[in-house]
Amino acid sequence: MKGKMTTLVLTAENIQTIIEELGIDAVMDQLIAKLYDALANFSAENTIIPIRSGFSYTKPSEGLIEWMPLRDKAGQEVTFKMVGYHPNNPTEKKLPTILSNITKYDTTTGHLISVMDGVLPTALRTGAASAVASKLFAKSDSKILGLIGCGAQSITQLHALSRVFDLEKVMYFDTEYQAVQSFENRASILSYSGSFEQASISEIVEGCDILCTATSIGIGEGPLFENILPKDHLHINAVGSDFEGKIELPKELLVKSYVCPDFLGQAVIEGECQQLSEDQIGKDLFYCINNAREINKYQDSTTVFDSTGISLEDQVVGSLFSHYAQELGIGSHLQIENNHLEQKNPYSFLTKLHFQKS
Amino acid sequence: MKGKMTTLVLTAENIQTIIEELGIDAVMDQLIAKLYDALANFSAENTIIPIRSGFSYTKPSEGLIEWMPLRDKAGQEVTFKMVGYHPNNPTEKKLPTILSNITKYDTTTGHLISVMDGVLPTALRTGAASAVASKLFAKSDSKILGLIGCGAQSITQLHALSRVFDLEKVMYFDTEYQAVQSFENRASILSYSGSFEQASISEIVEGCDILCTATSIGIGEGPLFENILPKDHLHINAVGSDFEGKIELPKELLVKSYVCPDFLGQAVIEGECQQLSEDQIGKDLFYCINNAREINKYQDSTTVFDSTGISLEDQVVGSLFSHYAQELGIGSHLQIENNHLEQKNPYSFLTKLHFQKS
Repeated sequence: MKGKMTTLVLTAENIQTIIEELGIDAVMDQLIAKLYDALANFSAENTIIPIRSGFSYTKPSEGLIEWMPLRDKAGQEVTFKMVGYHPNNPTEKKLPTILSNITKYDTTTGHLISVMDGVLPTALRTGAASAVASKLFAKSDSKILGLIGCGAQSITQLHALSRVFDLEKVMYFDTEYQAVQSFENRASILSYSGSFEQASISEIVEGCDILCTATSIGIGEGPLFENILPKDHLHINAVGSDFEGKIELPKELLVKSYVCPDFLGQAVIEGECQQLSEDQIGKDLFYCINNAREINKYQDSTTVFDSTGISLEDQVVGSLFSHYAQELGIGSHLQIENNHLEQKNPYSFLTKLHFQKS
Repeated sequence: MKGKMTTLVLTAENIQTIIEELGIDAVMDQLIAKLYDALANFSAENTIIPIRSGFSYTKPSEGLIEWMPLRDKAGQEVTFKMVGYHPNNPTEKKLPTILSNITKYDTTTGHLISVMDGVLPTALRTGAASAVASKLFAKSDSKILGLIGCGAQSITQLHALSRVFDLEKVMYFDTEYQAVQSFENRASILSYSGSFEQASISEIVEGCDILCTATSIGIGEGPLFENILPKDHLHINAVGSDFEGKIELPKELLVKSYVCPDFLGQAVIEGECQQLSEDQIGKDLFYCINNAREINKYQDSTTVFDSTGISLEDQVVGSLFSHYAQELGIGSHLQIENNHLEQKNPYSFLTKLHFQKS
């Protein structure tokens, strides 16, 4: 059943089926293109993004449930991402650290248009965001990608970057033995055909053209490295910093670099920008995309994309998967919301026959 | 499939089936009892209720999409109600004014436990809240119920109140002819066995022991009446006021009455309490329930329950329907959230065979 009152529900499996049908490269390429367009066409007038809020706690164990709302006036919709961040999930519950769902609402009626997995779409859009930023800031002939942190995000980072650069070598590091051991096998699903090199953090920072940091370093335990001299033109996508007190990069490197936050108000609270004063921070990604000529000059300098995650990215990936689902006929259409109240009768579904007096 | 990673989805039809199976009286009785318990056991220390926020707009047409979060520390869960309020829905879209869903999250993992219709549960819990408040403030031998506004809410108000008072007569009024005409027929599904009397607003206000106002009077168009002298002991459940500038009751009556808001911070913004200064407002419902002896003395005075709707009510009704669903085996268990990232491999579902290089 599909109608004006039904909600498209896309399970984790539905999202996977869509990707299987279309191929990961086609999906990633389109996501990068759509994200670029959305960023380039962004206007704060049209798209309202309140700073995310939520509940954070330390009992029963450390965690956070937060919501990221966005209202698109022209598109007449609200996108809402709920994110749970529970770092003890993998060891204590055999569940992912991040659980998430994305919902969309029609602002002409308030109707819940769709509910979908937010976990895999978030990993994909975070990769796509790094690709978009790297296209701006990294040299177009960048060949060597460094990855510090070899968890799930590292795969989508490599995937997205391999779609926009002719990468020849990936250097990778993780503190966790198992993550290092399995990395090349996990990455083997990608069409990337360059080489792999397990390396130390200093070898990576010194050797790569583009670096992605996507670690789960603890609060107050950063940075990941200090006193290492990178190539003059290194571009870094700092993906892991998403919590107050959680940082990955040394301040000494940040202050020498052009730092572009995805969303300034958020980056100064939970991104690498926590470490910087206002005058040490560059323009945000929206500005940089729309002023590429001015920004491209930084390709010869060290640059940092401070990626904290913005709901515009969730809107783009949510819309893309809704579109694919409709095109391919994947997903369930459930009538979650009740419309019997239309007849001013909440009990209209009952008949005298059914009704048992108590 | 039902497991630690699945989400219980309860559609509008599932909720209706539960009510059909159990009977509306059993459901309403249990809801009133559970709501009473939740209010009586409420502690601001244990249950965190941020003031709701949302997007409101006048284009494409007047509307509001808002979220009402609640965190229950002891219950280790977050309840989240999304509400769309679009007053032009009935005439322009043949949809209900209010569309809504309720979700629950496990704060030990961040997992989405359930998604369900919020429309019918909201109507039920709003009725139950009036029953709980009326038990406190109305005389226990109240016989005559007045209803101003005969929409969907009037049915659940009558239903809930008929479960806790031996009502003998219902006097009702609506500005809309069709609502008046159909009211008795709609109410006939209830086990209420007293009489009905179509009446004017002044006849109702003068004649009833308990009054429920549940109208869709426009912003700036209230109050519903003025200069009418009610019985000394009249208790009013003011249900309709839920928007800045939207009021139902005359200030002259409010200042003479003991006014109990459900949630003070909200009631002063969008309830009848908008019209009052701090010293003209009584204690909130949490306090009143826990101090029944002190509060019962107001049963001989005019009293007002300023019902703006609180997420504690949504938590109670959401938990009740989840419980029923599990007991009766109703609803779908869908794995919405992806847990493949557990293996640090977002693409683990793909095999080389499936994957088409592009």
